[in-house]
Amino acid sequence: MRNWAVAIHGGAGVIGRSMDPSMASVRMNHLEMVIRHASERAEQGQSAVDLVEQAVIELEEIPEFNAGRGAVLTADGKHELEAAIMDGSRAACGGACLLRNIRNPIRLARRVMEQSPHVLLAGEAAESMGMDLDRVENDWFTTSLRKEQWESWAATKREADARGPATVGAVARDQAGNLAAATSTGGRTGKPPGRIGDTPTIGAGTWADQTCAISGTGHGEAFMAAVTGHAVSARMRHLNEPLAEAASVIIHQEMPAGSGGLIAVDGSGRLAMPYNCEGMYRAAADSSGHLEIAIWD
Amino acid sequence: MRNWAVAIHGGAGVIGRSMDPSMASVRMNHLEMVIRHASERAEQGQSAVDLVEQAVIELEEIPEFNAGRGAVLTADGKHELEAAIMDGSRAACGGACLLRNIRNPIRLARRVMEQSPHVLLAGEAAESMGMDLDRVENDWFTTSLRKEQWESWAATKREADARGPATVGAVARDQAGNLAAATSTGGRTGKPPGRIGDTPTIGAGTWADQTCAISGTGHGEAFMAAVTGHAVSARMRHLNEPLAEAASVIIHQEMPAGSGGLIAVDGSGRLAMPYNCEGMYRAAADSSGHLEIAIWD
Repeated sequence: MRNWAVAIHGGAGVIGRSMDPSMASVRMNHLEMVIRHASERAEQGQSAVDLVEQAVIELEEIPEFNAGRGAVLTADGKHELEAAIMDGSRAACGGACLLRNIRNPIRLARRVMEQSPHVLLAGEAAESMGMDLDRVENDWFTTSLRKEQWESWAATKREADARGPATVGAVARDQAGNLAAATSTGGRTGKPPGRIGDTPTIGAGTWADQTCAISGTGHGEAFMAAVTGHAVSARMRHLNEPLAEAASVIIHQEMPAGSGGLIAVDGSGRLAMPYNCEGMYRAAADSSGHLEIAIWD
Repeated sequence: MRNWAVAIHGGAGVIGRSMDPSMASVRMNHLEMVIRHASERAEQGQSAVDLVEQAVIELEEIPEFNAGRGAVLTADGKHELEAAIMDGSRAACGGACLLRNIRNPIRLARRVMEQSPHVLLAGEAAESMGMDLDRVENDWFTTSLRKEQWESWAATKREADARGPATVGAVARDQAGNLAAATSTGGRTGKPPGRIGDTPTIGAGTWADQTCAISGTGHGEAFMAAVTGHAVSARMRHLNEPLAEAASVIIHQEMPAGSGGLIAVDGSGRLAMPYNCEGMYRAAADSSGHLEIAIWD
């Protein structure tokens, strides 16, 4: 039994070992910073839901990841952001999607969870819940990397060719034993405006209950059709599978090869971070002193 | 083993036995017509996915139900429709939400499933997939009943007081053994524009795989937090529970009392239609000659 455990991801997908080594190292350094901050807060007794929200805010602020600033561009060259959060201790959840002006989408998801009777709000309905939060022009999210990726997408208009999605997420087990998950993304380069993915879909890309907390990353539609997060929890609860086995069955046997990965934590603070594609930016830490930051195996 | 089986619903919720008996009888007559049509097509060998789409189109066309014409009004007095469909034989699914001008939302959901690489499209992105389908002005959906309900909601602005949601849905097991589910709704009276419910959320209000097909109705947020449809399937697959038992555990033990109900069919054509509220408009038929139309127990 770990006293606390935290994991974060910065996206899974086509991450070739031949990639620009400076980008890999920049992202690894960011992951290390965010996991160290989260570890300090976990050690101080912060709640799971605060831990995952805060970790995702930090990841959203990093322009090398596809969430908040640095998000990918839609087919019409804009940004449409989405996020969700779930507090496993009370089955409370909130998501926000089709966002264009809120600097930190995960903050809105938290407000939908805490302050509305709803689970998923889109566009203005969601943004109006955060009028006191930092708001930005839509092009504030744009970086030169995402512009290049959009131009390369625009040459073929094939979404399947889009590279480096780099969705972000966090899961945590706090000292009180509560679990929470949070995920935030700009989606896929070249997605049509109005496309909603797995990130804000409770049960698919984001899930937490008293059994486990899950944040997914990859081909969103595959996660939605598999209801990935809920599927891992169901195997654990009904088949008494340990977290690592349940997560592995879903990612390696039930989901299509190349579709992505997830980070997960269970009620005892055990962690699992399986993926079925080339790589996944990820980091994990727990109260035993374990610290791990990785892209490939 | 039934050769085929079909069930439909016209919503669950606060349906007091003291309600206007003429409205109850009108809705019962409609349900009988739609289930008879579906039975004839099932007998002729229509596929499960065509069966549920066609049944939901017929239900959308009936102004006494809350889908298509007759949909409830949002807080701003407009209609925002949503629908989803899932083909259990190939884990294909599609949903559409925040729709304002498409006459039959379920047709768009079908197109998202068949013709797009996406699972859920909102607003214009979805509507643009059906430019050749019947389109209407937003107020074409309005009926005097829904106007009265909106006025009564507007007096208190309490969504929880909204009465008679009457979402529609269908599930089917065809002669080839395939399963499918479809659901369509206008949501809840007084919902904020931009609120997305369980109907288009794959796994929550709409689900089909090779084990069962589910269409839910009731308090959407409760279905999203419980991932209701997928939860029923998971119990059947992992615990070997029969459909009736799995559906009953989820509706009566795991979901809050008063939150709604669902219709379900399994691979052998067995049907279940549990609900945890006052009543649920429902009808079912199968190849053994069984025909059932009911509101209360």
